[in-house]
Amino acid sequence: MFSVTVRDSMMVAHSLRGEVFGPAQQLHGATYVVDATFRSASLDADNVVVDIGQATEHLHAVLGELTYRNLDDDPALEGVNTTTEALAKVVADALAARIRSGQLGEGARDVAGITITLRESHVAWASYERDL
Amino acid sequence: MFSVTVRDSMMVAHSLRGEVFGPAQQLHGATYVVDATFRSASLDADNVVVDIGQATEHLHAVLGELTYRNLDDDPALEGVNTTTEALAKVVADALAARIRSGQLGEGARDVAGITITLRESHVAWASYERDL
Amino acid sequence: MFSVTVRDSMMVAHSLRGEVFGPAQQLHGATYVVDATFRSASLDADNVVVDIGQATEHLHAVLGELTYRNLDDDPALEGVNTTTEALAKVVADALAARIRSGQLGEGARDVAGITITLRESHVAWASYERDL
Amino acid sequence: MFSVTVRDSMMVAHSLRGEVFGPAQQLHGATYVVDATFRSASLDADNVVVDIGQATEHLHAVLGELTYRNLDDDPALEGVNTTTEALAKVVADALAARIRSGQLGEGARDVAGITITLRESHVAWASYERDL
Amino acid sequence: MFSVTVRDSMMVAHSLRGEVFGPAQQLHGATYVVDATFRSASLDADNVVVDIGQATEHLHAVLGELTYRNLDDDPALEGVNTTTEALAKVVADALAARIRSGQLGEGARDVAGITITLRESHVAWASYERDL
Amino acid sequence: MFSVTVRDSMMVAHSLRGEVFGPAQQLHGATYVVDATFRSASLDADNVVVDIGQATEHLHAVLGELTYRNLDDDPALEGVNTTTEALAKVVADALAARIRSGQLGEGARDVAGITITLRESHVAWASYERDL
Repeated sequence: MFSVTVRDSMMVAHSLRGEVFGPAQQLHGATYVVDATFRSASLDADNVVVDIGQATEHLHAVLGELTYRNLDDDPALEGVNTTTEALAKVVADALAARIRSGQLGEGARDVAGITITLRESHVAWASYERDL
Repeated sequence: MFSVTVRDSMMVAHSLRGEVFGPAQQLHGATYVVDATFRSASLDADNVVVDIGQATEHLHAVLGELTYRNLDDDPALEGVNTTTEALAKVVADALAARIRSGQLGEGARDVAGITITLRESHVAWASYERDL
Repeated sequence: MFSVTVRDSMMVAHSLRGEVFGPAQQLHGATYVVDATFRSASLDADNVVVDIGQATEHLHAVLGELTYRNLDDDPALEGVNTTTEALAKVVADALAARIRSGQLGEGARDVAGITITLRESHVAWASYERDL
Repeated sequence: MFSVTVRDSMMVAHSLRGEVFGPAQQLHGATYVVDATFRSASLDADNVVVDIGQATEHLHAVLGELTYRNLDDDPALEGVNTTTEALAKVVADALAARIRSGQLGEGARDVAGITITLRESHVAWASYERDL
Repeated sequence: MFSVTVRDSMMVAHSLRGEVFGPAQQLHGATYVVDATFRSASLDADNVVVDIGQATEHLHAVLGELTYRNLDDDPALEGVNTTTEALAKVVADALAARIRSGQLGEGARDVAGITITLRESHVAWASYERDL
Repeated sequence: MFSVTVRDSMMVAHSLRGEVFGPAQQLHGATYVVDATFRSASLDADNVVVDIGQATEHLHAVLGELTYRNLDDDPALEGVNTTTEALAKVVADALAARIRSGQLGEGARDVAGITITLRESHVAWASYERDL
């Protein structure tokens, strides 16, 4: 199994709902350093899982819909408790949609699955892994 | 599949038994930077795999039984060759016991598995992965 | 010259004032991974610049006054454009006040200077360095 | 499941074939920081997956056949488009051959699989994972 | 003293002249992860040393003149033994010229000095520090 | 000013003397990831501060006198409270002696100063900087 990973980041404000979150129930914020991993059993005609340039561009576009915002006011996230786990799934699903619609190129249609990891600090991170 | 990881560290003395270890057969020591990963197919009512605060607290408690000690004199490890792999299993099993007994909260009872990684230097680390 | 550094982090919401900041003029957020460096020409009776435990505890207390907040609503920062540079100075000055008042112990009174570095992402950080 | 990972690096020149690579079609170069992970369901008599010293030595030997070279002129890679993914497989297959022939010791014969990760920058890396 | 640092990278082929370099006398290559630090005693009207966006853009432009090339064939580097130290100076001088000519904005004219660090692997890096 | 840095590590057992150290008064251990920085105002005939190969070899030799040992039993450290700061000075002084005696080559005689940083965990490190 082959995989390729590219890294970018986003900077958002949000608050979390639930007593378990303690002070994180207040409006605060986070930088999420985001790693997007693309997996495939085989390489395409160019000997890649997915073109790193294309992967980087589309991860950046997906994060561009979230970064520099207050997620509490984002209509697309209404009703979502925006934990790190939940945001990892939001990013993964958006990237998966782009792959399936052919935006990352024909070769990327063979991508078998992706994993999105959001690092929220030097001591905590979360991931969401899904098939395509 | 979702996962959450928290990081802490421990500082121990120990010696290893077996010619293969060369100078590491002498009493020496290590800082292990420890990553504990919790995996779950679904999120709980708070939209998390496990509360990061609880996960951090319990990892710290587990490491607290090992850190600042000479493992060669630890009765709980008598007869154990305390390689990085073996210590990863010790930490994983202790954390698994806490999850199963409900100490990390009811939501954590859905954790499907955990992985413990011990980084012993900038160029070497070991992991142990187990189901719950 | 000796130095000791300890690391912690804070997670805040804020917005920046000024056209130069582009989308960062909107309410967003950041995790700042914070490194506090203490410098001294000589070591104290315990052979340290400052006790790492005390340094860690006081850095955590200083960050505790900022983390999990919307800095735009913090009366202590009213009128401050809370750039990474400016926040580095806020942290440095608060830590310096604690050192001068003896809260980090008598040995820490010989600390000659401190540097605070705030890492806002994997590709950008800022520092403020001052004497004591 | 246990695993052990060791890290080394190699520095090579090469060019890539295919329009998708843009300026990387020109002769350029890369440092690949290489992580070799060895997996096993059980530990050997010394309580390790594989001796870290042996693993380090053999990874270094495998990389020694590639580093400080222009891969475009390497007869062993003739006709290979030397993408990061492809090089990860080259390293993995060479290391697997050494394990199977017993060069990493008898204990290493129980290694179930290996993963090779090549980090080409702070924002991009690729892996190849295979069974033994 | 304040400072701001931004990170980018470049990927080049080159060879080094001199017996001391051993196998690095052959054509090989490197990824240099490049940190550019800007220092200033005071902040500008926007409370920054230099706008991070502008700093990032101009570092990228400077590296764009080197990346994806064989430095042995670069007329601008003819006669230069392109060690990591020497390349750090090339980047620093190019960035300094842009600051002095006002390309990073009027605020950046108060930048007192810059440091360029080139990381060539996980175990080696070089820096060049200069005034403006 | 130019600088070059190389990284290695050592793994030691030791105990610290003084109530301030709390549980670290017990015999425990640490991995120190060690960065050795060499500074010079100018480059030598090969365009380097110091040959990275030589620097790496001599740092490794200096650490070889400490690693895989219980420092409490090391005659060379008798009476020394082996804090991270103190060990940074031990390494720096040993490396400085090698430079002054010409072991790192004639070019290295122009090295103006060195800094040794010992990272004891992901959240704490200490440095010692000296002239030559």
